[in-house]
Amino acid sequence: MPLDLPPEVEDFLRQPNTAVIAAVRPDGFPMTVATWYDWEGGRVLVNMHANRARLAWMRLNPKVSLTFFDQDWYRHVSLYGLVDSIADDIDLADIDRLARRYTGKPFGSRTQKRVSAWIAPVGWHGWDPAGALASRPTSR
Amino acid sequence: MPLDLPPEVEDFLRQPNTAVIAAVRPDGFPMTVATWYDWEGGRVLVNMHANRARLAWMRLNPKVSLTFFDQDWYRHVSLYGLVDSIADDIDLADIDRLARRYTGKPFGSRTQKRVSAWIAPVGWHGWDPAGALASRPTSR
Repeated sequence: MPLDLPPEVEDFLRQPNTAVIAAVRPDGFPMTVATWYDWEGGRVLVNMHANRARLAWMRLNPKVSLTFFDQDWYRHVSLYGLVDSIADDIDLADIDRLARRYTGKPFGSRTQKRVSAWIAPVGWHGWDPAGALASRPTSR
Repeated sequence: MPLDLPPEVEDFLRQPNTAVIAAVRPDGFPMTVATWYDWEGGRVLVNMHANRARLAWMRLNPKVSLTFFDQDWYRHVSLYGLVDSIADDIDLADIDRLARRYTGKPFGSRTQKRVSAWIAPVGWHGWDPAGALASRPTSR
Protein backbone atom coordinates (compact mmCIF):
# COMPACT_ATOMS: atom_id res chain seq x y z
CA MET A 1 0.00 0.00 0.00
CA PRO A 2 1.51 3.35 -0.96
CA LEU A 3 2.61 5.67 1.82
CA ASP A 4 0.00 8.32 2.47
CA LEU A 5 1.62 11.70 1.72
CA PRO A 6 -0.04 15.12 2.03
CA PRO A 7 -1.03 16.62 -1.36
CA GLU A 8 1.46 19.49 -0.87
CA VAL A 9 4.26 16.97 -0.56
CA GLU A 10 3.15 15.01 -3.63
CA ASP A 11 2.94 18.28 -5.60
CA PHE A 12 6.46 19.11 -4.46
CA LEU A 13 7.77 15.69 -5.51
CA ARG A 14 6.30 16.08 -9.00
CA GLN A 15 8.60 19.06 -9.65
CA PRO A 16 12.01 18.35 -11.23
CA ASN A 17 13.81 18.92 -7.96
CA THR A 18 17.42 18.49 -7.06
CA ALA A 19 17.71 15.06 -5.43
CA VAL A 20 20.17 12.93 -3.52
CA ILE A 21 19.82 9.17 -3.13
CA ALA A 22 21.49 7.02 -0.47
CA ALA A 23 22.07 3.32 -0.92
CA VAL A 24 23.85 1.05 1.56
CA ARG A 25 27.23 -0.36 0.57
CA PRO A 26 28.05 -3.99 1.36
CA ASP A 27 30.46 -2.72 4.07
CA GLY A 28 27.53 -0.99 5.81
CA PHE A 29 28.36 2.59 4.87
CA PRO A 30 25.57 4.59 3.30
CA MET A 31 26.62 6.30 0.07
CA THR A 32 24.86 9.40 -1.18
CA VAL A 33 24.93 10.77 -4.72
CA ALA A 34 23.00 13.32 -6.78
CA THR A 35 20.32 11.86 -9.02
CA TRP A 36 17.55 12.69 -11.43
CA TYR A 37 14.20 11.17 -10.46
CA ASP A 38 10.50 11.22 -11.25
CA TRP A 39 7.47 10.63 -9.05
CA GLU A 40 4.50 8.56 -10.22
CA GLY A 41 1.87 6.47 -8.51
CA GLY A 42 3.39 6.98 -5.09
CA ARG A 43 6.82 5.71 -6.14
CA VAL A 44 10.15 7.22 -7.16
CA LEU A 45 11.76 6.35 -10.50
CA VAL A 46 15.55 6.55 -10.78
CA ASN A 47 17.78 5.39 -13.59
CA MET A 48 21.44 4.41 -13.59
CA HIS A 49 24.20 3.33 -15.91
CA ALA A 50 24.24 -0.49 -15.77
CA ASN A 51 27.82 -0.44 -14.42
CA ARG A 52 27.05 1.81 -11.45
CA ALA A 53 28.20 0.43 -8.11
CA ARG A 54 25.02 1.58 -6.41
CA LEU A 55 22.94 -0.55 -8.74
CA ALA A 56 24.75 -3.63 -7.43
CA TRP A 57 24.32 -2.37 -3.85
CA MET A 58 20.57 -1.87 -4.37
CA ARG A 59 20.25 -5.40 -5.71
CA LEU A 60 21.90 -6.67 -2.51
CA ASN A 61 20.07 -4.32 -0.15
CA PRO A 62 16.86 -2.61 -1.29
CA LYS A 63 16.83 -0.06 1.55
CA VAL A 64 17.39 3.44 0.20
CA SER A 65 16.62 7.05 1.05
CA LEU A 66 16.15 10.22 -1.00
CA THR A 67 16.16 13.93 -0.21
CA PHE A 68 14.57 16.47 -2.58
CA PHE A 69 15.00 20.27 -2.73
CA ASP A 70 13.58 22.96 -4.87
CA GLN A 71 15.66 26.06 -5.64
CA ASP A 72 15.53 27.10 -2.02
CA TRP A 73 17.23 24.18 -0.30
CA TYR A 74 15.53 25.09 2.96
CA ARG A 75 12.41 23.53 1.43
CA HIS A 76 13.10 19.84 1.42
CA VAL A 77 11.43 16.46 1.66
CA SER A 78 13.13 13.16 2.51
CA LEU A 79 11.82 9.65 1.99
CA TYR A 80 13.16 6.28 2.97
CA GLY A 81 11.89 3.15 1.32
CA LEU A 82 12.42 -0.06 -0.58
CA VAL A 83 13.51 -0.67 -4.15
CA ASP A 84 10.65 -2.83 -5.35
CA SER A 85 11.56 -3.13 -9.02
CA ILE A 86 14.81 -3.12 -11.00
CA ALA A 87 14.63 -3.54 -14.78
CA ASP A 88 16.76 -2.87 -17.83
CA ASP A 89 15.74 0.32 -19.63
CA ILE A 90 16.14 -1.41 -22.97
CA ASP A 91 14.75 1.32 -25.24
CA LEU A 92 16.06 4.19 -23.00
CA ALA A 93 12.46 5.30 -22.43
CA ASP A 94 13.01 5.94 -18.73
CA ILE A 95 16.28 7.85 -19.02
CA ASP A 96 14.77 9.89 -21.85
CA ARG A 97 11.82 10.64 -19.60
CA LEU A 98 14.17 11.86 -16.87
CA ALA A 99 16.41 13.80 -19.27
CA ARG A 100 13.36 15.56 -20.78
CA ARG A 101 12.07 16.36 -17.31
CA TYR A 102 15.35 18.01 -16.27
CA THR A 103 16.82 19.32 -19.54
CA GLY A 104 13.93 19.41 -22.01
CA LYS A 105 15.82 17.06 -24.32
CA PRO A 106 16.23 13.29 -24.73
CA PHE A 107 19.24 11.67 -23.08
CA GLY A 108 22.49 12.40 -24.94
CA SER A 109 24.02 8.94 -25.13
CA ARG A 110 22.12 6.38 -27.21
CA THR A 111 24.49 3.46 -26.61
CA GLN A 112 24.64 3.25 -22.81
CA LYS A 113 23.07 0.30 -21.04
CA ARG A 114 20.70 1.84 -18.51
CA VAL A 115 18.72 0.33 -15.66
CA SER A 116 15.64 1.71 -13.90
CA ALA A 117 14.62 1.26 -10.29
CA TRP A 118 11.29 2.08 -8.67
CA ILE A 119 11.33 2.92 -4.98
CA ALA A 120 8.31 2.58 -2.69
CA PRO A 121 8.52 4.97 0.26
CA VAL A 122 8.07 3.59 3.78
CA GLY A 123 8.47 6.82 5.74
CA TRP A 124 9.14 10.49 5.14
CA HIS A 125 10.26 13.74 6.70
CA GLY A 126 9.66 17.25 5.38
CA TRP A 127 10.66 20.71 6.45
CA ASP A 128 10.28 24.21 5.10
CA PRO A 129 10.26 27.62 6.72
CA ALA A 130 6.54 28.11 6.05
CA GLY A 131 5.55 24.70 7.37
CA ALA A 132 3.76 23.61 4.19
CA LEU A 133 5.96 20.52 3.81
CA ALA A 134 6.51 19.87 7.51
CA SER A 135 5.92 16.30 8.60
CA ARG A 136 5.78 17.46 12.22
CA PRO A 137 6.94 20.40 14.32
CA THR A 138 10.70 20.36 14.12
CA SER A 139 13.72 22.41 14.97
CA ARG A 140 16.73 22.52 12.70
CA MET B 1 45.18 9.46 8.68
CA PRO B 2 43.00 11.91 6.76
CA LEU B 3 41.74 10.91 3.34
CA ASP B 4 43.88 12.45 0.61
CA LEU B 5 41.62 14.71 -1.46
CA PRO B 6 42.64 16.79 -4.48
CA PRO B 7 43.04 20.53 -3.69
CA GLU B 8 40.12 21.36 -6.03
CA VAL B 9 37.86 19.13 -3.98
CA GLU B 10 39.01 20.60 -0.68
CA ASP B 11 38.45 24.12 -2.07
CA PHE B 12 34.97 23.06 -3.10
CA LEU B 13 34.20 21.63 0.35
CA ARG B 14 35.26 24.90 2.02
CA GLN B 15 32.40 26.73 0.29
CA PRO B 16 29.04 26.93 2.11
CA ASN B 17 27.48 24.36 -0.18
CA THR B 18 24.11 22.74 -0.04
CA ALA B 19 24.60 19.39 1.69
CA VAL B 20 22.75 16.18 2.42
CA ILE B 21 23.81 13.73 5.11
CA ALA B 22 22.81 10.07 5.34
CA ALA B 23 22.87 8.14 8.59
CA VAL B 24 21.78 4.52 9.03
CA ARG B 25 18.63 3.88 11.04
CA PRO B 26 18.56 0.97 13.52
CA ASP B 27 16.20 -0.85 11.09
CA GLY B 28 18.91 -0.68 8.41
CA PHE B 29 17.36 2.01 6.22
CA PRO B 30 19.59 4.93 5.34
CA MET B 31 17.98 8.29 6.05
CA THR B 32 19.02 11.41 4.20
CA VAL B 33 18.38 14.99 5.28
CA ALA B 34 19.61 18.47 4.35
CA THR B 35 22.29 19.87 6.63
CA TRP B 36 24.64 22.76 7.21
CA TYR B 37 28.28 21.71 7.50
CA ASP B 38 31.82 23.04 7.60
CA TRP B 39 35.10 21.51 6.45
CA GLU B 40 38.27 21.75 8.55
CA GLY B 41 41.39 19.66 8.91
CA GLY B 42 40.11 17.00 6.56
CA ARG B 43 36.89 16.44 8.51
CA VAL B 44 33.26 17.52 8.24
CA LEU B 45 31.53 19.35 11.10
CA VAL B 46 27.76 19.00 11.45
CA ASN B 47 25.54 20.13 14.29
CA MET B 48 22.13 18.89 15.41
CA HIS B 49 19.42 19.58 17.91
CA ALA B 50 20.10 17.22 20.84
CA ASN B 51 16.71 15.53 20.28
CA ARG B 52 17.34 14.66 16.64
CA ALA B 53 16.74 11.01 15.80
CA ARG B 54 19.80 10.92 13.56
CA LEU B 55 22.03 11.88 16.47
CA ALA B 56 20.93 8.71 18.27
CA TRP B 57 21.44 6.71 15.06
CA MET B 58 24.96 8.10 14.65
CA ARG B 59 25.80 7.13 18.23
CA LEU B 60 24.71 3.56 17.44
CA ASN B 61 26.29 3.42 13.98
CA PRO B 62 29.03 5.91 13.03
CA LYS B 63 28.84 5.16 9.29
CA VAL B 64 27.55 8.18 7.39
CA SER B 65 27.71 9.77 3.96
CA LEU B 66 27.40 13.33 2.67
CA THR B 67 26.80 14.89 -0.75
CA PHE B 68 27.67 18.53 -1.43
CA PHE B 69 26.55 20.82 -4.30
CA ASP B 70 27.25 24.34 -5.24
CA GLN B 71 24.58 26.38 -7.02
CA ASP B 72 24.84 24.17 -10.07
CA TRP B 73 23.87 20.79 -8.66
CA TYR B 74 25.67 19.06 -11.53
CA ARG B 75 28.88 19.92 -9.66
CA HIS B 76 28.86 17.63 -6.67
CA VAL B 77 31.14 15.76 -4.30
CA SER B 78 30.16 12.85 -2.06
CA LEU B 79 32.03 11.44 0.91
CA TYR B 80 31.41 8.45 3.10
CA GLY B 81 33.07 8.13 6.46
CA LEU B 82 32.96 7.65 10.18
CA VAL B 83 31.69 9.89 12.95
CA ASP B 84 34.77 10.10 15.13
CA SER B 85 33.61 12.67 17.68
CA ILE B 86 30.24 13.64 19.16
CA ALA B 87 30.15 16.41 21.78
CA ASP B 88 27.67 18.81 23.30
CA ASP B 89 27.91 22.28 21.77
CA ILE B 90 27.53 23.84 25.20
CA ASP B 91 28.19 27.49 24.32
CA LEU B 92 26.61 27.16 20.80
CA ALA B 93 29.97 28.03 19.26
CA ASP B 94 29.65 25.38 16.55
CA ILE B 95 26.07 26.13 15.51
CA ASP B 96 26.92 29.84 15.49
CA ARG B 97 29.88 29.04 13.26
CA LEU B 98 27.61 27.18 10.85
CA ALA B 99 24.84 29.80 10.98
CA ARG B 100 27.36 32.58 10.24
CA ARG B 101 28.80 30.56 7.37
CA TYR B 102 25.39 30.11 5.75
CA THR B 103 23.40 33.17 6.84
CA GLY B 104 26.00 35.70 8.00
CA LYS B 105 24.35 35.79 11.44
CA PRO B 106 24.60 33.84 14.71
CA PHE B 107 22.10 31.03 15.23
CA GLY B 108 18.64 32.35 16.09
CA SER B 109 17.74 30.19 19.06
CA ARG B 110 19.88 30.67 22.18
CA THR B 111 18.15 28.04 24.32
CA GLN B 112 18.39 24.90 22.20
CA LYS B 113 20.60 22.07 23.30
CA ARG B 114 22.89 21.40 20.34
CA VAL B 115 25.36 18.63 19.62
CA SER B 116 28.29 18.61 17.19
CA ALA B 117 29.69 15.68 15.26
CA TRP B 118 32.95 15.49 13.32
CA ILE B 119 33.09 13.06 10.42
CA ALA B 120 36.33 11.61 9.02
CA PRO B 121 35.95 10.66 5.35
CA VAL B 122 36.94 7.15 4.27
CA GLY B 123 36.15 7.43 0.56
CA TRP B 124 34.78 9.94 -1.91
CA HIS B 125 33.23 10.42 -5.32
CA GLY B 126 33.07 13.61 -7.34
CA TRP B 127 31.54 14.64 -10.61
CA ASP B 128 31.15 17.82 -12.60
CA PRO B 129 30.71 18.55 -16.27
CA ALA B 130 34.21 20.05 -16.58
CA GLY B 131 35.91 17.17 -14.78
CA ALA B 132 37.58 19.38 -12.14
CA LEU B 133 35.95 17.46 -9.29
CA ALA B 134 35.85 14.06 -10.97
CA SER B 135 37.20 11.21 -8.87
CA ARG B 136 37.44 9.04 -11.98
CA PRO B 137 35.97 8.90 -15.48
CA THR B 138 32.26 8.38 -14.95
CA SER B 139 29.03 8.36 -16.84
CA ARG B 140 25.85 9.66 -15.28
